[in-house]
Amino acid sequence: MRATVIYGAGDVRVEDAPDPKIAQPTDAVVRVVRSCICGSDLWPYGSMEATEHGHRIGHEFLGIVEDAGSAVSAVRTGDLVIAPFMYSDNTCQFCREGLQTSCEHGGVWGARGVDGAQGEIVRVPQAEGTLVKVPATQDDALLASLLTLSDVFSTGHHAAVKAGVNERTTVTVIGDGAVGLSAVLAAKRLGAERILLMGRHAVRTDLGREFGATDVIAERGDEGVEKLRELTSGAGTHTVLECVGTKPAIEMAAGTVRAGGTISRVGVPQYLEGPLGGPVFMRNVTITGGVAPARQYIEDLLPDVLDGKIQPGKVFDRTIDIEKVPSGYQAMADREALKVLIAF
Amino acid sequence: MRATVIYGAGDVRVEDAPDPKIAQPTDAVVRVVRSCICGSDLWPYGSMEATEHGHRIGHEFLGIVEDAGSAVSAVRTGDLVIAPFMYSDNTCQFCREGLQTSCEHGGVWGARGVDGAQGEIVRVPQAEGTLVKVPATQDDALLASLLTLSDVFSTGHHAAVKAGVNERTTVTVIGDGAVGLSAVLAAKRLGAERILLMGRHAVRTDLGREFGATDVIAERGDEGVEKLRELTSGAGTHTVLECVGTKPAIEMAAGTVRAGGTISRVGVPQYLEGPLGGPVFMRNVTITGGVAPARQYIEDLLPDVLDGKIQPGKVFDRTIDIEKVPSGYQAMADREALKVLIAF
Repeated sequence: MRATVIYGAGDVRVEDAPDPKIAQPTDAVVRVVRSCICGSDLWPYGSMEATEHGHRIGHEFLGIVEDAGSAVSAVRTGDLVIAPFMYSDNTCQFCREGLQTSCEHGGVWGARGVDGAQGEIVRVPQAEGTLVKVPATQDDALLASLLTLSDVFSTGHHAAVKAGVNERTTVTVIGDGAVGLSAVLAAKRLGAERILLMGRHAVRTDLGREFGATDVIAERGDEGVEKLRELTSGAGTHTVLECVGTKPAIEMAAGTVRAGGTISRVGVPQYLEGPLGGPVFMRNVTITGGVAPARQYIEDLLPDVLDGKIQPGKVFDRTIDIEKVPSGYQAMADREALKVLIAF
Repeated sequence: MRATVIYGAGDVRVEDAPDPKIAQPTDAVVRVVRSCICGSDLWPYGSMEATEHGHRIGHEFLGIVEDAGSAVSAVRTGDLVIAPFMYSDNTCQFCREGLQTSCEHGGVWGARGVDGAQGEIVRVPQAEGTLVKVPATQDDALLASLLTLSDVFSTGHHAAVKAGVNERTTVTVIGDGAVGLSAVLAAKRLGAERILLMGRHAVRTDLGREFGATDVIAERGDEGVEKLRELTSGAGTHTVLECVGTKPAIEMAAGTVRAGGTISRVGVPQYLEGPLGGPVFMRNVTITGGVAPARQYIEDLLPDVLDGKIQPGKVFDRTIDIEKVPSGYQAMADREALKVLIAF
């Protein structure tokens, strides 16, 4: 089979790899139908040290079950399934609390002998807990939207859920990347009526408006904070969904959140320390969020996707085949593409 | 009247000051019956630059209303009242949300022409919103417990409330100062069955056990984290109430909180930046807390104090008169006293 391997910054290759087989009774083997490139894949693509052997990459996919181990009964050969961006047994103490990203028997794709998702076939550990069966379809738009439950839309939803977004909360979304736009859609779905999107790329913020943003703020830093406060009677918003992960983004979040409000972060932090003292404390700001337990959300979000009530797959603005994956990375790094879908 | 003035580190004096009078129709004048010294007063006592004029200090008191302005109807001459550690109108948008510390017309004691609480008489701005009338009493223990609603017990309660402590949550309390012990009592009152107190002063941790701590951990730093994890099957606790405010304390909190759990901070942070990246993000840890809106809690907590169901006043282990305030500061700085009560 063909699979994507990253060797270092700017060096992504598609190579032959052995076809995965069942190794444990808890495994399944899935032939990938759709995968994609994530904003977080751009961090190693931007800065990973060059290596001789590289490693598999990609963590979002849906596909058809080809084979399942003897301990797997929830899915079987021929089922269309979504895999969340981390695998988990869905039975341990953390999974039962809805935190499958902290599963005691879980892990990430593309490491420790587990396949990456940007390839033709994937061996799925803990398949019983990991995979979610969905109705068979060949509808391109629906497949794209279903794929977003693997990571990007579930991540936006996590930001909104952890922030406590509802019909009474005003919302700022920082970042017009695919996660930020997903957070806008998730906030709208949870009933928010006022959603201020901070982003400067018109094509993206236009999709943000379509998803539910009521205001778009192109300014950044102190200027962005000032503009947002002007638009909210000086107070800021009850919730801020920080979907970038940089230090300036979390600092902007601290400036735009209302006293007593909540910053919910889902952009992987490119910092170890951030604003916790001073005004964050004096204004009783809560900082929450983290890596999204997509597995917990897939079943909740599925009906709205299947009904077409929400179309989170609109974040994909380019579709490529597996051989074109390197150019897909480059297009996202150059901001020519918002999010790249890989169709098999 | 006599009032406390701080001039710089280690330099607290009791001086004559003009008797406060009603200045605004929204004012009241209160003759102080009990005041006290706060752990947060020790920060300027430890490091304030020497000044020529100094400033009034103290922010916790209860007393008898001597006079009230024409716009004040909730309290009147002769009433025993508790003042929270910040004044507030209790009607603005933030007060209505229970965040009186962010009141649009509120402020702190001992600044901008407002009296400090470590003095015989205090002019109270926004008296209608600020003061809470309580039944008259001369019972020393009850007066001490009522006084804790002004700050220290309300602050411990805020830590527990913001963390979401209930009968299903395990709790770590970091710090065996008066706030930490108050947080233990507050967590117990909210139903927590397992409360692990991190502190190393036996006299204090003994009171912690009396207040409800089930385990005491004397170790600090990595050793303390390791010990706590041993006691919680390796996972840490659902909630961590951080009642110190130093960088090592918040770092210890990040180490002891369970994945998906909450750190609630009420110790005034002596840092601007703290742990937000890495494991805090990957383990979905929420960081909340802040300066406690004591005004919001006083009415809720009052019945349990009046009934004697809780006795938060036990944190006071020394009582002095106003002239002895300088030695009271020194005793707390030297850790000879846990918390010093000033009786008038």
